Amino acid sequence: MIFFIFAGIQKLRKMALINEHYQKLAAGYLFPEIGRRVREFEQAHPENRIIRMGIGDVTQPLAPLVIRAFHEGVDEMASAATFRGYGPEQGYGFLREAIAERSYRSRGADISGDDIFVSDGSKCDTGNIQEIFDSSSRVAICDPVYPVYADTTVMAGKTGSCFLCYPNNPTGSVATRKELQKWVDYALEHKSIILFDAAYEAFIRDAEIPHSIYEIKGAKKAAIEFRSLSKTAGFTGTRLAYTVIPEELVAYDSQGNEVQVKKLWNRRHTTKFNGVSYPVQRAAAAVFTDEGQREVQVTIDYYMENAALIRKSLGSFGYTVYGGENAPYIWVKTRNGMKSWDFFDLLLGKAHVVGTPGSGFGPS
Amino acid sequence: MIFFIFAGIQKLRKMALINEHYQKLAAGYLFPEIGRRVREFEQAHPENRIIRMGIGDVTQPLAPLVIRAFHEGVDEMASAATFRGYGPEQGYGFLREAIAERSYRSRGADISGDDIFVSDGSKCDTGNIQEIFDSSSRVAICDPVYPVYADTTVMAGKTGSCFLCYPNNPTGSVATRKELQKWVDYALEHKSIILFDAAYEAFIRDAEIPHSIYEIKGAKKAAIEFRSLSKTAGFTGTRLAYTVIPEELVAYDSQGNEVQVKKLWNRRHTTKFNGVSYPVQRAAAAVFTDEGQREVQVTIDYYMENAALIRKSLGSFGYTVYGGENAPYIWVKTRNGMKSWDFFDLLLGKAHVVGTPGSGFGPS
Repeated sequence: MIFFIFAGIQKLRKMALINEHYQKLAAGYLFPEIGRRVREFEQAHPENRIIRMGIGDVTQPLAPLVIRAFHEGVDEMASAATFRGYGPEQGYGFLREAIAERSYRSRGADISGDDIFVSDGSKCDTGNIQEIFDSSSRVAICDPVYPVYADTTVMAGKTGSCFLCYPNNPTGSVATRKELQKWVDYALEHKSIILFDAAYEAFIRDAEIPHSIYEIKGAKKAAIEFRSLSKTAGFTGTRLAYTVIPEELVAYDSQGNEVQVKKLWNRRHTTKFNGVSYPVQRAAAAVFTDEGQREVQVTIDYYMENAALIRKSLGSFGYTVYGGENAPYIWVKTRNGMKSWDFFDLLLGKAHVVGTPGSGFGPS
Repeated sequence: MIFFIFAGIQKLRKMALINEHYQKLAAGYLFPEIGRRVREFEQAHPENRIIRMGIGDVTQPLAPLVIRAFHEGVDEMASAATFRGYGPEQGYGFLREAIAERSYRSRGADISGDDIFVSDGSKCDTGNIQEIFDSSSRVAICDPVYPVYADTTVMAGKTGSCFLCYPNNPTGSVATRKELQKWVDYALEHKSIILFDAAYEAFIRDAEIPHSIYEIKGAKKAAIEFRSLSKTAGFTGTRLAYTVIPEELVAYDSQGNEVQVKKLWNRRHTTKFNGVSYPVQRAAAAVFTDEGQREVQVTIDYYMENAALIRKSLGSFGYTVYGGENAPYIWVKTRNGMKSWDFFDLLLGKAHVVGTPGSGFGPS
């Protein structure tokens, strides 16, 4: 039993003080508020079946090959001869190599297994990455934005100002090679770092759209990429994601000296994280095989057919609809200036469908 | 694809600046250095079989009931009817309730399932908890100390000064009810918060030693407790831990107003974490059944018999030995003032046994 005592540094004052950045957070994260309204509706109308499209969760089971590998991983834990204790915090080599080959090198991006840091979720990674940068750093946040980015940034005391984002979650649109090249060039010129969230790359249909920032020239010196198996392979409840930080990427100390970002992240990751569950890593590795990719693609096609159907239906009612073509999200413009929470209530009340109000993603 | 750009706040300066607290960290975390020395020895003496006792890892397989539940959890992920997507970030109710009943209420500690936050490791929890407190907060760190505490505290810019710790990892000793009551009373008086790491409670043999801080009067208003299944149930590679924060626990804002700590942690946990893998939670729940407890106890007894054997052997060579009675760690006093890294090399070179040098835990 080890224990610490938290206390303020003021002389003679030992009181535990909170991080007041937390009090700047707007009460109620978007999704809890949606949950509250849905529960209220359910209690008032228990006879209705509700279709939940408010949170980007998956509904289809894990692919057969993934399930098989998952079971094998569990079986290995059942005998002392094959049992795995602490693994490498960055993930097992078999998984990191499979990812580097399948997600990057096969698309012409020169990334090695050693650049891949396996984690239990992109939500953690995109929040935690901020720890290795200076607390005065400005984070440019897009608007509309996935609310986790804004919230974790406020928690760290880094409220950002400008926005520069090709929205995908939530609006479902994508960035072309040319647009991405502009951002990479900008970052190189200003010695800034792009945090690139590619969680939905598997939904890209257009062959012209890059799947990874590292398909862009110079990006290895300019960007960190985040990916997740959550939507790609139905891992929202199984949990596996990864962060890519190439050797070449540097940031600066206050004297202007270069510091390798990968080294900092490695230190953070190995000190504050203990690696992903071994059977989960076995299951994930199956995704990066030929057979795994084929199986996973079937599920992605299923979601994209749903998206096309929704897009078409909303269009036929006269709504202007964005997205749904290279991402599983659809962004609807309400009519006659209706507020998005009012549209949420209308959709829930009349169609028993749960959406997500656009205002939850930012003022725009 | 969403992206952020990190940039310093100085006027006209967009450079990505690092968190310089990271540069205060001593080069090389303890365990990597041990790994380096062991690899060197292996290369020089490939004929020798090395016994690794340097890192507190487990070697015995998961209990049969745990394996069965783990497989069942995986099977549920294989069909749309039973598939689980995003779960509650705090953990499933079935697990939180099982923990509250088995670990707390059965020992007279009035903790509810709602006070339990399930995570993938205590290393993460003990590091992350610092985020909800003010960055000026002083953290009292024990010496000797488990190095993760010191490192994560330095990363957050909270280098502590005083030390107050009943060492367990590493020294294997424990705190009595009376000693713990003193600490709780101190915390209550000074409005401080005790961070109590009870990762090894299952190894306690002495009936007089409390397993939880909440067995102590007033502790619900004074302490956060961390527990892990890593050592208790062989989960070092499977990953599951939990943090307990009672309703009653408060900290203070700079105006001296009370703020519920549980609410802050809930906000952090739900925003920056996405819950533990569902099959892993199923596996963990099996630990908290009658049969699971019996099975897990067999493995704990095995480790404690090993500890007794090591303690006895070292004693017979004339070494003064601590621990090994209520914890699986043994703390050896070297002879003739030998430095602990020299003793490490001696043990590795002569006996081919990997230990951990005491100096890695602090100057004392």
